[in-house]
Amino acid sequence: MTLSDAIAKLDEIEKAAYALNHAQAVLTTDGDTAAPKNSWKGRGMALAYLGELLYRQLVNPETGEVLETVLQHPNEAGEIVFRRAEVMKEAYDDMHVLPMEEYTAYEELTNESGAVWHEAKEKSDWNLFAPYLEKIIAFRRHFASLKAPEKPAYDVLLDQFEKDASMETLDPFFRSLRDDLAPLIREIAARKKPVPAFLKGPWPIARQRLFSEKVMALEGIDSLNCTLGETEHPFTNSCNKWDVRITTHYHEEDPFSSMFSVIHEGGHALYELDIRDDLQFTCLAGGSTMGIHESQSRFYENLIGRSRAFCTPLLKIMREVFPDQMEGVIEEDLYSAVNLSEPSLIRTEADELTYSLHVMIRYELEKAMIAGDLKVRDIPGEWNRLYREVLGVEVPDDRRGCLQDSHWSFGGIGYFPSYALGSAYGVQMLREMEKTVPVWDTVAAGHLAPVTAWLTERIHQYGCLKKPKDLLAGAMGGPLDPSVYTGYLKKKFSELYRLS
Amino acid sequence: MTLSDAIAKLDEIEKAAYALNHAQAVLTTDGDTAAPKNSWKGRGMALAYLGELLYRQLVNPETGEVLETVLQHPNEAGEIVFRRAEVMKEAYDDMHVLPMEEYTAYEELTNESGAVWHEAKEKSDWNLFAPYLEKIIAFRRHFASLKAPEKPAYDVLLDQFEKDASMETLDPFFRSLRDDLAPLIREIAARKKPVPAFLKGPWPIARQRLFSEKVMALEGIDSLNCTLGETEHPFTNSCNKWDVRITTHYHEEDPFSSMFSVIHEGGHALYELDIRDDLQFTCLAGGSTMGIHESQSRFYENLIGRSRAFCTPLLKIMREVFPDQMEGVIEEDLYSAVNLSEPSLIRTEADELTYSLHVMIRYELEKAMIAGDLKVRDIPGEWNRLYREVLGVEVPDDRRGCLQDSHWSFGGIGYFPSYALGSAYGVQMLREMEKTVPVWDTVAAGHLAPVTAWLTERIHQYGCLKKPKDLLAGAMGGPLDPSVYTGYLKKKFSELYRLS
Repeated sequence: MTLSDAIAKLDEIEKAAYALNHAQAVLTTDGDTAAPKNSWKGRGMALAYLGELLYRQLVNPETGEVLETVLQHPNEAGEIVFRRAEVMKEAYDDMHVLPMEEYTAYEELTNESGAVWHEAKEKSDWNLFAPYLEKIIAFRRHFASLKAPEKPAYDVLLDQFEKDASMETLDPFFRSLRDDLAPLIREIAARKKPVPAFLKGPWPIARQRLFSEKVMALEGIDSLNCTLGETEHPFTNSCNKWDVRITTHYHEEDPFSSMFSVIHEGGHALYELDIRDDLQFTCLAGGSTMGIHESQSRFYENLIGRSRAFCTPLLKIMREVFPDQMEGVIEEDLYSAVNLSEPSLIRTEADELTYSLHVMIRYELEKAMIAGDLKVRDIPGEWNRLYREVLGVEVPDDRRGCLQDSHWSFGGIGYFPSYALGSAYGVQMLREMEKTVPVWDTVAAGHLAPVTAWLTERIHQYGCLKKPKDLLAGAMGGPLDPSVYTGYLKKKFSELYRLS
Repeated sequence: MTLSDAIAKLDEIEKAAYALNHAQAVLTTDGDTAAPKNSWKGRGMALAYLGELLYRQLVNPETGEVLETVLQHPNEAGEIVFRRAEVMKEAYDDMHVLPMEEYTAYEELTNESGAVWHEAKEKSDWNLFAPYLEKIIAFRRHFASLKAPEKPAYDVLLDQFEKDASMETLDPFFRSLRDDLAPLIREIAARKKPVPAFLKGPWPIARQRLFSEKVMALEGIDSLNCTLGETEHPFTNSCNKWDVRITTHYHEEDPFSSMFSVIHEGGHALYELDIRDDLQFTCLAGGSTMGIHESQSRFYENLIGRSRAFCTPLLKIMREVFPDQMEGVIEEDLYSAVNLSEPSLIRTEADELTYSLHVMIRYELEKAMIAGDLKVRDIPGEWNRLYREVLGVEVPDDRRGCLQDSHWSFGGIGYFPSYALGSAYGVQMLREMEKTVPVWDTVAAGHLAPVTAWLTERIHQYGCLKKPKDLLAGAMGGPLDPSVYTGYLKKKFSELYRLS
């Protein structure tokens, strides 16, 4: 096969993969937003068929030859084509070791287990979900052994979400977070602040929808390319830079839950919206690792969204949308209100300080369950023990305990660490950004464009063109150092809670 | 090929076709509702690829052999399998005469011309759209000649939307409508009624959304299987009987425009929702011809929704949702308000009496343009002449004239007659239904289930299992007879306008 034949064929594969991925993304998003409740069956059939086509596009001898041919010509192929082959080769290597029947059986299992998890969570009934999780763990371990029999299975899983992550790097990372943050969390828990009176609202949902629009505009999201929907669990889904969807969930008693969802998902969206035009409709036109993606969402949500400076434009908007509720509220009140810290039960609602320890608990559990040291039936007890030990909270039921997250139900074992890594990456990027961008002046002025421009220059524009480690090196100014992250949290929360 | 091999292969083709059609339906619906404005490019690429796959599924020698094999075994195959092969054969015959490149070029043309038509309509600029329509007409004529060179091209087009329809049957049908209705329309136009005062509203859109929910419930639509969206042009799209979408468009100054859209699209939806379970996910799981589909939507919209009896439950709901606006309004006022008749410019907003003459005008124009007797550049003049002659109205611009409908832009030449045929079918079904169902008592009681049950028994349940002519014979109690339709209209409107 000549190089030009290989490139032509690569283009064809990309075209097919784009169309199939686009359809899958829209069907999934629609399924969670506009579709009737009973539509799951037909959608499942359609998604299964599209998944099969995608598998066949990737897993066949011709695709292998196409990729090999391009990869043998790094100079002639050009940077973009070569990297496309490299990234596709990673997916090829992941997939082609899986027999079609096992892959299909696994897809069917996770499709079904998603529905079962929903029901189990509603009923707070671990026994309903447990047999599915057992099968999922068995599949993941088996697939990991097919891919890299020489490596611990959990390392193989971690690597799928965060390239090159392993227990060797994550063990000391999480140990450092725990050692540095747990004492501070205990100290703050002892000095509990009263909830500010203005928070009681009420916050009518029709006004909150308007508030979302203004928050998206403040964040710099172009509504011609990105729309907002409503779902129980907020998410971002992207087809290309001109077709991004984010969702949120409104609570009448609290405007900040939705607002921070919008800002968080908006951070994911900005990443996708700012990827270079010439990478669109190829496998490079998406964010890099999960950790890097989370670094962007959590950057906007916490480092910007919960900063003192952001309270200036935020208060202005809130006064426009909620004039009665915000009467007499000053920026300091707002800053304090969005940074209340208290050990709690639910990860997605946790404050910035305690968040990473929720993640750490899941990391410990996943390690043990994949190693075979923790039986599925023993997860609830172990979950509750860790919440007691690490965060000092009692878990009243599995709904608010080990059934709260959907990740395991779709096979996303190894995903959670990305949230903590992303948070840590983000702080190191902020420190680097501060060297050249007057971050806090521009945020206080309600002008986030320079912040996004910096992130676009260092991260967003590249999509998957650069390798994750090069991307991080170019944005963090040095290797991962958890003390930068914990140092940031210790300073911020010591000041907020006036600790010595 | 053995019969059992052929049936197994037919199942496979259906599975693929279902998945691809499902994806196309969701992408299209999503594109008109939730998708960002700039998303058209990626969606176009995805739809083109899915369309290509669908073409390849259908147009290949193996599919031809599968269909022939099944069709040679009417008894052994069983009713459903045989009819599936028969219906698929019709699509096969339509498609396999089209060379792939011409089919793709046509798909691209109509995809593009849709966007151009939107712009042309906005700018009221026929010259913008004219070159596209010229190409579309050329394609349609060419495709018709490939399919049935011995038949007039317009008959081939008519047959695609309404099986066995032809100019031979439609010419006298429309002549009869014109002869019977035009004098009455002129008489009523001379006795113009004042617009009732309560109609001035205002009708807040948030309340109208609630109103829609209640109207859908009254019509008997299960929201677990059918959801309502919002688009400029209302439509229905169905993936299967558990996944139907309808849309509407709200106007603050008028509650009835949206309400009748909901009832009309709801009629299409009920048809799809009531098709038998054992036909789902096959090519029989959809409504029959366009005319039969329109007979159902217009049945609920006009025969039920604009009936005197329906005003009883309707007034109850409107009083709940709009207590201030409806104060002092009685059922007679409502009946009169939803049946104001006046020759007007816009087909989709036309009243029940004048509606079919809007359709007749399009029929005359299409006949002439496909025969080559009317140049595209002369359409606006001819359109305006016919509106003046038939309806007595002056067309002020092409936006409200020959650019108002989208049909020609997507190649739907020959579609319009279905609207008028459907209206006529519906009245004949009503007459038949009245023989066994106490229609007006049950409608006045707000209990539409017996009406829907009758339509389900005669029409809905069969999907495409019966041939259109058998379906109609079973529901209409006799052949098409336009005098039943015009008789119904003459009686209703003579009474409403107290004509002798």
